[in-house]
Amino acid sequence: MKRRTRARKAGLPPGSLVHIGERQVDGARLSSIDYSPDRFVTRTIADLGELDACLGTDTVSWIDLVGLHDIPLIEGIGKTFGIHALVLEDILNTDQRPKVEVFDEYVFLVAKMIRPGEGDRAGSIEIEQVSFILGKSFLITFQERPGDVFGSVRERLKAGKGRLRRSGPDYLGYALLDGIVDNYFVVLDHLSTKMDSIESAVLDQSDSLVNHRIHRLKHDLLMLRKATWPLREIVSALIRDEPPQVAAESRPYLHDLYDHTAHVADTLDTYREMLSGLLEVHFSLVNTRMGEVMKVLTIIATIFIPLTFVAGVYGMNFEHMPELAWKWAYPAILAIMFSIAASLLVFFRLKHWI
Amino acid sequence: MKRRTRARKAGLPPGSLVHIGERQVDGARLSSIDYSPDRFVTRTIADLGELDACLGTDTVSWIDLVGLHDIPLIEGIGKTFGIHALVLEDILNTDQRPKVEVFDEYVFLVAKMIRPGEGDRAGSIEIEQVSFILGKSFLITFQERPGDVFGSVRERLKAGKGRLRRSGPDYLGYALLDGIVDNYFVVLDHLSTKMDSIESAVLDQSDSLVNHRIHRLKHDLLMLRKATWPLREIVSALIRDEPPQVAAESRPYLHDLYDHTAHVADTLDTYREMLSGLLEVHFSLVNTRMGEVMKVLTIIATIFIPLTFVAGVYGMNFEHMPELAWKWAYPAILAIMFSIAASLLVFFRLKHWI
Amino acid sequence: MKRRTRARKAGLPPGSLVHIGERQVDGARLSSIDYSPDRFVTRTIADLGELDACLGTDTVSWIDLVGLHDIPLIEGIGKTFGIHALVLEDILNTDQRPKVEVFDEYVFLVAKMIRPGEGDRAGSIEIEQVSFILGKSFLITFQERPGDVFGSVRERLKAGKGRLRRSGPDYLGYALLDGIVDNYFVVLDHLSTKMDSIESAVLDQSDSLVNHRIHRLKHDLLMLRKATWPLREIVSALIRDEPPQVAAESRPYLHDLYDHTAHVADTLDTYREMLSGLLEVHFSLVNTRMGEVMKVLTIIATIFIPLTFVAGVYGMNFEHMPELAWKWAYPAILAIMFSIAASLLVFFRLKHWI
Amino acid sequence: MKRRTRARKAGLPPGSLVHIGERQVDGARLSSIDYSPDRFVTRTIADLGELDACLGTDTVSWIDLVGLHDIPLIEGIGKTFGIHALVLEDILNTDQRPKVEVFDEYVFLVAKMIRPGEGDRAGSIEIEQVSFILGKSFLITFQERPGDVFGSVRERLKAGKGRLRRSGPDYLGYALLDGIVDNYFVVLDHLSTKMDSIESAVLDQSDSLVNHRIHRLKHDLLMLRKATWPLREIVSALIRDEPPQVAAESRPYLHDLYDHTAHVADTLDTYREMLSGLLEVHFSLVNTRMGEVMKVLTIIATIFIPLTFVAGVYGMNFEHMPELAWKWAYPAILAIMFSIAASLLVFFRLKHWI
Amino acid sequence: MKRRTRARKAGLPPGSLVHIGERQVDGARLSSIDYSPDRFVTRTIADLGELDACLGTDTVSWIDLVGLHDIPLIEGIGKTFGIHALVLEDILNTDQRPKVEVFDEYVFLVAKMIRPGEGDRAGSIEIEQVSFILGKSFLITFQERPGDVFGSVRERLKAGKGRLRRSGPDYLGYALLDGIVDNYFVVLDHLSTKMDSIESAVLDQSDSLVNHRIHRLKHDLLMLRKATWPLREIVSALIRDEPPQVAAESRPYLHDLYDHTAHVADTLDTYREMLSGLLEVHFSLVNTRMGEVMKVLTIIATIFIPLTFVAGVYGMNFEHMPELAWKWAYPAILAIMFSIAASLLVFFRLKHWI
Repeated sequence: MKRRTRARKAGLPPGSLVHIGERQVDGARLSSIDYSPDRFVTRTIADLGELDACLGTDTVSWIDLVGLHDIPLIEGIGKTFGIHALVLEDILNTDQRPKVEVFDEYVFLVAKMIRPGEGDRAGSIEIEQVSFILGKSFLITFQERPGDVFGSVRERLKAGKGRLRRSGPDYLGYALLDGIVDNYFVVLDHLSTKMDSIESAVLDQSDSLVNHRIHRLKHDLLMLRKATWPLREIVSALIRDEPPQVAAESRPYLHDLYDHTAHVADTLDTYREMLSGLLEVHFSLVNTRMGEVMKVLTIIATIFIPLTFVAGVYGMNFEHMPELAWKWAYPAILAIMFSIAASLLVFFRLKHWI
Repeated sequence: MKRRTRARKAGLPPGSLVHIGERQVDGARLSSIDYSPDRFVTRTIADLGELDACLGTDTVSWIDLVGLHDIPLIEGIGKTFGIHALVLEDILNTDQRPKVEVFDEYVFLVAKMIRPGEGDRAGSIEIEQVSFILGKSFLITFQERPGDVFGSVRERLKAGKGRLRRSGPDYLGYALLDGIVDNYFVVLDHLSTKMDSIESAVLDQSDSLVNHRIHRLKHDLLMLRKATWPLREIVSALIRDEPPQVAAESRPYLHDLYDHTAHVADTLDTYREMLSGLLEVHFSLVNTRMGEVMKVLTIIATIFIPLTFVAGVYGMNFEHMPELAWKWAYPAILAIMFSIAASLLVFFRLKHWI
Repeated sequence: MKRRTRARKAGLPPGSLVHIGERQVDGARLSSIDYSPDRFVTRTIADLGELDACLGTDTVSWIDLVGLHDIPLIEGIGKTFGIHALVLEDILNTDQRPKVEVFDEYVFLVAKMIRPGEGDRAGSIEIEQVSFILGKSFLITFQERPGDVFGSVRERLKAGKGRLRRSGPDYLGYALLDGIVDNYFVVLDHLSTKMDSIESAVLDQSDSLVNHRIHRLKHDLLMLRKATWPLREIVSALIRDEPPQVAAESRPYLHDLYDHTAHVADTLDTYREMLSGLLEVHFSLVNTRMGEVMKVLTIIATIFIPLTFVAGVYGMNFEHMPELAWKWAYPAILAIMFSIAASLLVFFRLKHWI
Repeated sequence: MKRRTRARKAGLPPGSLVHIGERQVDGARLSSIDYSPDRFVTRTIADLGELDACLGTDTVSWIDLVGLHDIPLIEGIGKTFGIHALVLEDILNTDQRPKVEVFDEYVFLVAKMIRPGEGDRAGSIEIEQVSFILGKSFLITFQERPGDVFGSVRERLKAGKGRLRRSGPDYLGYALLDGIVDNYFVVLDHLSTKMDSIESAVLDQSDSLVNHRIHRLKHDLLMLRKATWPLREIVSALIRDEPPQVAAESRPYLHDLYDHTAHVADTLDTYREMLSGLLEVHFSLVNTRMGEVMKVLTIIATIFIPLTFVAGVYGMNFEHMPELAWKWAYPAILAIMFSIAASLLVFFRLKHWI
Repeated sequence: MKRRTRARKAGLPPGSLVHIGERQVDGARLSSIDYSPDRFVTRTIADLGELDACLGTDTVSWIDLVGLHDIPLIEGIGKTFGIHALVLEDILNTDQRPKVEVFDEYVFLVAKMIRPGEGDRAGSIEIEQVSFILGKSFLITFQERPGDVFGSVRERLKAGKGRLRRSGPDYLGYALLDGIVDNYFVVLDHLSTKMDSIESAVLDQSDSLVNHRIHRLKHDLLMLRKATWPLREIVSALIRDEPPQVAAESRPYLHDLYDHTAHVADTLDTYREMLSGLLEVHFSLVNTRMGEVMKVLTIIATIFIPLTFVAGVYGMNFEHMPELAWKWAYPAILAIMFSIAASLLVFFRLKHWI
């Protein structure tokens, strides 16, 4: 399916809901989890009316939507929770830059989930957009595809151990973001293995197309940087602005998250520098190698050219060439040729050319 | 028509009205739209006196001027709305950097509209300057050419649906700017296609002049960056300074606009980095290819040069060359030549040169 | 005349008045203009005592000194107007970085005037230092050479139209600075023409020394950047610090000036980037071209070397070479040679080398 | 032993204690030093209960843990001193970026100790993580391996001279950090020697693989930069934020520490720039050398090729070649050949090619 | 004498006095000057007790120490004037980064004096550390070697003219710093001459090792940048922080000093950019030149190779080669050869290769 690009929206009024990106699942799936320290109810929601139940209770509600192409459904969610049309527009636009926006009623946050591609996309990096709407008693998440990153948080929530069930939706949001960032490290590991393989390919000169691989990896790093870099500012803005939806107890966790995102950003930059260094080494090795080939070959040619000239001289058909009749002329000439070759070799050697 | 450059103004007093740039239309066209939630009147204005009507009413007036060469007309507009001479000077100067200036009575904003060239300018990017004067109850726009970007806003205004008719001139200005920025994404799409085509040309090495194309695209990116980059600061200044002409309800829209402009700026930078990477790959591929050609050719030459020397030796005319009379000398020499060639090939092979 | 450099001052106490730079005129020329809305008196001042007259009147006085080598004269001016010794030192030092300093009694400002060289300096850029001392009722300007930039302001002042005669010395200073900045655009135009000529020389490869020209232009841009870049900060400091010598009505003019200086700075940077791009293109074209030459030549050589070897074989003088006696041997060998050449050509063609 | 990477933690809840890095010692060793001006007691702690004694006394306690793999032990320490789970997580994660975090009860600080590798790691740089927990009356340090850097502080503490025994745990922490930073200078010295050796290898062109060495050193510098650079910000944050755990008397020492870290950072950057310069010089020298080789060789070939042609002409077997019968033809031709070679040499000389 | 490096200090407690650097003089020399508007007493101090006299009087005392290896002497000065141990440590460490530190009782400042090397160090730049301790009524300076820079200030002080005798120790400190910065300009002049000589060597291609010279000069610039760059921040900090030891009247002088240091920093950066440009030009010229050589040589070879082949054909010994017997065959073949050479030359000419 062709990717829909942002250019489709030119000429439409602001707040027009258009899904930008690839449709990743067949049907949108909306589910909710209501929890409190002593309660855990999970539901699949077919009708938007069921959502109203979430708003009234004193439990925490996590509403999760997988699949972004069902625009009336998303419009319905927006109406139920009073979400600004521009926010809905941003949720649908998967070409969106990660960002956070604090409104009176809720905090809106967009992040990018990355993971190594599987199946026929192996070797590439997949980027998926995840949006969060964090209210006083609810958290809504919007994913493009069902993701196993959220699965582990759901398990922990179900198990009911740890802080998760005792805390509000802000800690849940933190736990999900933390899972996303933890996954960044999986991708970094993946990249690190690639870097090592490229480094040995460069140093052995075993792969003449290693610069293609470096180019592709650089491209991947550029994409990852675009996806992960803004997250640092986002977390830093949440720490600085202290929105009321985020409890004071969650601050240390945000600091921790900030450190992790900073670490990811730093590592990506280090990888970029190392790749540039590898490219330089590759080029210098290729050049050195090529230069050596040319040098040896040229030296062989250079030694034989004067010799061929000498042979050519005595191949001339002049009638009066007294040397031709001398008895030892032939071995003498062979000796002269040999000494020419030898002195050239000595000369090259002295010049350190061979 | 020759482009008029800013150098024409050296020696003139500040505030001198001189049109800098190309004249794009034959006659300047001034039109106005008066609207309120229940009113929509569109007029073509021939006489400046008609403008006074706009100032007194409690409707919102959008005055649109297409064509910047009619200096008395612009002077008249300036006098009617009390606009500073330096502002008028900036409107006429299409070599102007995008900027915003907040005055007590109005906000002055310059932006650049970009679009893919059409007709005989296809392949290039066209940049047009649009200036806005935003007052309490009016918005004046100055364009170089009649533009279809503003057309869609005019249609929405006429249809009367959405926020447009219910809001003040600040929302109208936002809608126009949003249309301009939406168009940036159309151009980005256009560039993205060009990038893909260049990338495959680089990787296939099918186009020996691909570095020219990269050079032209880099140049275009430089121009676009100059045109779009300042818009980010402009929107950010409008958000920060909260001029009275911009209602508080319009703030979220400005935030949205800011995100879009930031996205455009980011994407342009990413493209620039990708282009530089492509150029590097191109050069390395060209070099590798050339090196391979030279290597193979040199190897062929190198093998035959010693053989030719041997043939030359036995082409010498010495009287006393006993080998010449031997019966098997000729096939023996041919065998020796063959083995020289073979051992050189084996040597090259062992050295991994072929 | 040798340029005097700053190193001459090592060991002298601070505030020592030493002229650094080239002496540009024969004699220093001091003149004054007294003006008010209804008065315009121009004088050439021979004796410093005449300056006292300027201080007492309620008119605005513009005192203009051309030529910086007459140190007692400048010391006299300093004493008359109470100017700090370090300021006088800076005025004399034409190797001075543009800057502004606000004192209680006056504002001191140094700017650089640039213009395309004339006569035997054609093609180069000339940089001249202009210093301003702006007091409550006077403006003193110090130039190295008589300049036509100030001429146009003098004309306007004489004509008495516009704001100039009605405003204070701050507006006069602004008008002079504006004239200087307007001249920057003339130089930018000049550079733009040079850039175009270099671009076409690069793309046509018509000038093998185009990299020299790029080098010189880069050097010029570096000099211009040093001369013009600080002016932006200077104007920005004047806007921010609001010195009492600058009336509030002059602010919009300073904003305008700021935009112009920012535009100049931007354009210089864009030119620098474009030049670097052109240099890259030049090198790649030279390389491509050289590579092509070498390739074609090497191919010619490579085809003939095996053929020469074959000819060499049948030029050997062995007694027992049965082929030599065959009747069709000669045409057969010619045919073999032809087919060797042809198959090499086909091989090169298949490899896309020719 | 395989290094454990951070990717292991994906899917675990925040605050999960997992040791990331290599296990460096066999058993974890926990020891404590209690000191006051007139007291110095050192203990090896086997049972965590003994730690309670440290908390109640009015002496300063330094608790030192070597070995990070004993997770229950670290959990116990965390419980005894009331340390946040996220802090413990960071202590265990040796892939942690240096940082400081100020809590109400304690200050948490992570730094990197670096030293030249020993034994079979000679030539490389070893990086070890050291964490500090600074409370009102105690300092806890966590090391990966037993380190001689802390040994010298322990000696001074035992000797009881200087400020160390009279001051609180903040000065002890400073002294340890200072020891770590002093060790940075040892590594810088080590690097400086390497740089000198590389520089002479580059200038002599004695080592054709010097670019490998430059590459490795660049890689080391990148690692060191990552380890040492954040320390500057950390010390600067401690100075700026004035946490209550750091006494005012310790400020000058922190300033001094800041200067040292800034000096290290500066020196690393200078080294990087110098290495890049050396790489450039290396490439240019290799190129120049290769170019000279090729030139000389090509000149030799070029001189002999026309001569061989002349010899070839007189080796033709035409019946009607009158020159062949001339008596002085042979010496004449030799003379001609000689003069061809001589004029080519003169031509090359005039062109400054040889 | 081997340079002592900072690594010596690893393991020593903070505040340990160790001289780092080369010992530059045989014996340390301590002298003092007491002055007031009507007093000027100069003394050589042998016993530290004489210093107490300086502290009590109402004159200004300038105490100057030349030679940093006499650690007991420096410890004595520190005790007499109450200087912090860390400050004394910094004074002894000539590998110190320039910095300023404001204490309650005094201001501590480290700067670097630079000058062109003399004698057997000619061509290099010498860097010497100078430390200042500025109290309310005294200034202590610490130099590595006796310097003629301070000599001129001492002369002016003795002569008693100008502000120097009338002002406090802050103005004296300024005058000394100003002398140091003035000397920077001498070195800049020196560098400028070197740059010019390198530029002409590059453009004439008269020096094949010019890239070595560029490399050395780049290295010098890097060192100078490290020595001079921080001085700008130091002066700026003095202006901003307004320490009580610096009188308000000295502010304009500090501003002036700031401008000078900024000018030096700017110029060094400009030089660096110019050097990089020169290096690029050098490489491009070397490449162009080498390419031309190779091209001409290859063209000569290429023309003769086909001719030699033709000669080789008619040197074959086949019995049935009818052409050999033709009467005009020889001149015909010569004509054919000539025309082959001519057409190749025409072809190369048409392709613009020659």
